[in-house]
Amino acid sequence: MKTMPSFTRLAGIATLLLTTAGASASLPPPPTAVDLAQRGDDIAWSITEDLTTEIGPRMAGTEAEAAARRWAVARLQSMGFANVREEQFDMPVWVRGAEEASLIGPFLPQKLAIAALGNSASTGPKGIEGEIAYFATYDELVAAPSGQVKGKIVFIDHQMKAAQDGSGYGQYGRARFTGANVAAKKGAVAVVIRSIGTDSHRVPHTGGTNFEAGVTPIPAGALSNPDADQLVRQWQRAQRLTNPATAKDDAEPLRMKLVLTPRNLGTKHSGNVIAEVAGSDPAASPVIIACHLDSWDQGTGAIDDAAGCGIITAAAKHVMAAGQSRRTIRLLWAGAEEVGVFGGKAYFEAHGKEKHAVAMESDFGADRIWRVDFKLPDSAKELSHRIALAVAPFGVTMGQHPAGGGADVGALIAAGVPAIDLQQDGTRYFDLHHTPDDTLDKVDPAQLRQNVVVWTAVLAILANSSDAELP
Amino acid sequence: MKTMPSFTRLAGIATLLLTTAGASASLPPPPTAVDLAQRGDDIAWSITEDLTTEIGPRMAGTEAEAAARRWAVARLQSMGFANVREEQFDMPVWVRGAEEASLIGPFLPQKLAIAALGNSASTGPKGIEGEIAYFATYDELVAAPSGQVKGKIVFIDHQMKAAQDGSGYGQYGRARFTGANVAAKKGAVAVVIRSIGTDSHRVPHTGGTNFEAGVTPIPAGALSNPDADQLVRQWQRAQRLTNPATAKDDAEPLRMKLVLTPRNLGTKHSGNVIAEVAGSDPAASPVIIACHLDSWDQGTGAIDDAAGCGIITAAAKHVMAAGQSRRTIRLLWAGAEEVGVFGGKAYFEAHGKEKHAVAMESDFGADRIWRVDFKLPDSAKELSHRIALAVAPFGVTMGQHPAGGGADVGALIAAGVPAIDLQQDGTRYFDLHHTPDDTLDKVDPAQLRQNVVVWTAVLAILANSSDAELP
Repeated sequence: MKTMPSFTRLAGIATLLLTTAGASASLPPPPTAVDLAQRGDDIAWSITEDLTTEIGPRMAGTEAEAAARRWAVARLQSMGFANVREEQFDMPVWVRGAEEASLIGPFLPQKLAIAALGNSASTGPKGIEGEIAYFATYDELVAAPSGQVKGKIVFIDHQMKAAQDGSGYGQYGRARFTGANVAAKKGAVAVVIRSIGTDSHRVPHTGGTNFEAGVTPIPAGALSNPDADQLVRQWQRAQRLTNPATAKDDAEPLRMKLVLTPRNLGTKHSGNVIAEVAGSDPAASPVIIACHLDSWDQGTGAIDDAAGCGIITAAAKHVMAAGQSRRTIRLLWAGAEEVGVFGGKAYFEAHGKEKHAVAMESDFGADRIWRVDFKLPDSAKELSHRIALAVAPFGVTMGQHPAGGGADVGALIAAGVPAIDLQQDGTRYFDLHHTPDDTLDKVDPAQLRQNVVVWTAVLAILANSSDAELP
Repeated sequence: MKTMPSFTRLAGIATLLLTTAGASASLPPPPTAVDLAQRGDDIAWSITEDLTTEIGPRMAGTEAEAAARRWAVARLQSMGFANVREEQFDMPVWVRGAEEASLIGPFLPQKLAIAALGNSASTGPKGIEGEIAYFATYDELVAAPSGQVKGKIVFIDHQMKAAQDGSGYGQYGRARFTGANVAAKKGAVAVVIRSIGTDSHRVPHTGGTNFEAGVTPIPAGALSNPDADQLVRQWQRAQRLTNPATAKDDAEPLRMKLVLTPRNLGTKHSGNVIAEVAGSDPAASPVIIACHLDSWDQGTGAIDDAAGCGIITAAAKHVMAAGQSRRTIRLLWAGAEEVGVFGGKAYFEAHGKEKHAVAMESDFGADRIWRVDFKLPDSAKELSHRIALAVAPFGVTMGQHPAGGGADVGALIAAGVPAIDLQQDGTRYFDLHHTPDDTLDKVDPAQLRQNVVVWTAVLAILANSSDAELP
């Protein structure tokens, strides 16, 4: 039984024969997991809708995230999953406060839409005022002498564009990931970036920023794209203005007022929610599939990542319903992903020494899967072809690059666990990512269903793969 | 000279002949106004960009609107218009304060994006809490007995959809125009409506609401569409919940906390800015073309209505540049339109007894003109055909319904002044209308240019129409 293409079907037929005495021998075969998934039930949708409606935003380490864990345990138990449990861990908690930004000169004051970045320092309730030091890119800031930055509010611009594979995030995202750290080391009083986002709405994109040990955090925020455009236009005009007092051609500085009052609440509890579909072979290593339960605080985390939890859970449910698989499927609804992958790290600390056959994660929205990438041992070459064949009818092509895995299974993969990525279409993902606009209406039910069908097809194969293929 | 199709061209040729002694008789004709408009200059764009960048939001009766008037006078003078002036008037001023809304039960508290409606009362800084009384439509609220409303926070839902002619605004807009008044009369403590808008972003649509004399205003706000969706989902779930205390099947109420602290600042100055292109015949009645200079306070009023001012001004400039017309063209950049058409009324009080040949306004965004509507005297039948022929090459069809005119020329038209509407495509107008998202990036330069070309073609004909056509 090297490939076991008909394991699930055979198991289903056996069950059916046992329960339909007297039925004709020409009965149609029972539905496969993929058949079940294709019936278009609403498991993934209802998880996404219920979680985002009844809990809403689920900031890591807050009461809302704890309520989401209780909700998740109850939902997974009611769906018939085994070993449903919460695994707690501790983490540092940062929460948003007031946030206001205005351009205050040389033109009339104008308010800008801003969101503090995770780990931002506070300006204090009275805020700060400063001259804008403009940098067209993160790299220009890195290259700038401290004299251009010291005592100023650094603004980092960039040109992020949408891409199906989301590849702009790594390059342009540096402005958010470490721009504040670079600015702080050069003596800036604060940093404001153009949102790492591809939309044109007045909804700034938040997300974490990180300061090196020994660097004192400074206030850090992101402007929405239209507000960044406005800042740039005013900055260009300010450069052209002649100082009327001196009649010299020296530029008038563009000035900003900034009020950001986030707080660090210290160490709090978060937790992972884990559930399983028990396999028939207790000795076989499990397949681990992940999503994250926490979200940023301004939207309801529909595409990031309630939909991911809906997708993996619906797929696991369909595989379970079609008959017992050989391997255990373990679902990880990770906590505290957004603010530093604390849930993924906690899972690795608790379970990293256990064997895992393969790891997967759904955390890139709810638009259709268009490509499958593999990082599997040589023994799984045929397995990967089997998977590629199974997903091709749903419009999924085979990628040429190794799978990277998701954040919450990143530690496992770094430790050598094989990985498969079901790449989702990210063309509009960064329109919504980490904004107040990440709400249920952005989830397309038809594309969500395609995700479930593809995940089900892959999961049914993996859960019945042999130890020779995936040790 | 009944139709004078070549007046402008002849005047231009005469000028040219006088200034190019020795030139060949086979010189090409000088450019017409439409030729000039088609060269794709950036007059309309630069007015829109400069006004929205250097002034930004221009709430009626505020210092920002006064700054915009000074800006407008300087700009119109620098462009060579005649009789540029400000005509002041007084008006009551309402300004936004804090605004917060949360759903607070039966689920965990969740914040909603809300904007106070113009003329909303204040909840006081501590806010109010109340049970939601849900109405699927404005008409259901009108039909409801007071007992369903008294002491509650009324929510008005609706199903507005985008339409090219914007025709949903009148029907669904009633929820905003008078919903608060209806709710107040039935004893509601506040009213919250689904935004009169067709987008799905967390940017609520503000706009004025009106209370009858003798009705005490109540707090009134609009939720963004995704927030209204969330309220509806929670309301549906609350209806289904059984009260655990009584174990009876009575619904748990959905509850909201609301903080809106707008203020009435009393009577303040606003003003209209007026400019002219002087005609050759001082006895001929002028053509009046309008836009409005004020905007709501949360966006920069790019599509509503900086672009309108850019369009009419660029068209007038092109007609002026092509040679003197017979009629004077008068530009009205009206003040205080959004909050009650105070500028249009003030213009009518000051100038309503003067003769006007025809009135037009651009105040429906910056997307392309697709239809021309007329409300002209019988004497202008041939004139309207001439206009329809002139705009047809730019994709503009002739409508079957009478022109309505814009708000700022509404009093003139009601008093019998003929009107022409150059109808803009409103398909996406209510995605942006009265939201923070009304910013420069929403203006499409190509469609803006089409507006200018069509306005120029119409204006050149009107400014040279005969007294027999338009008395």
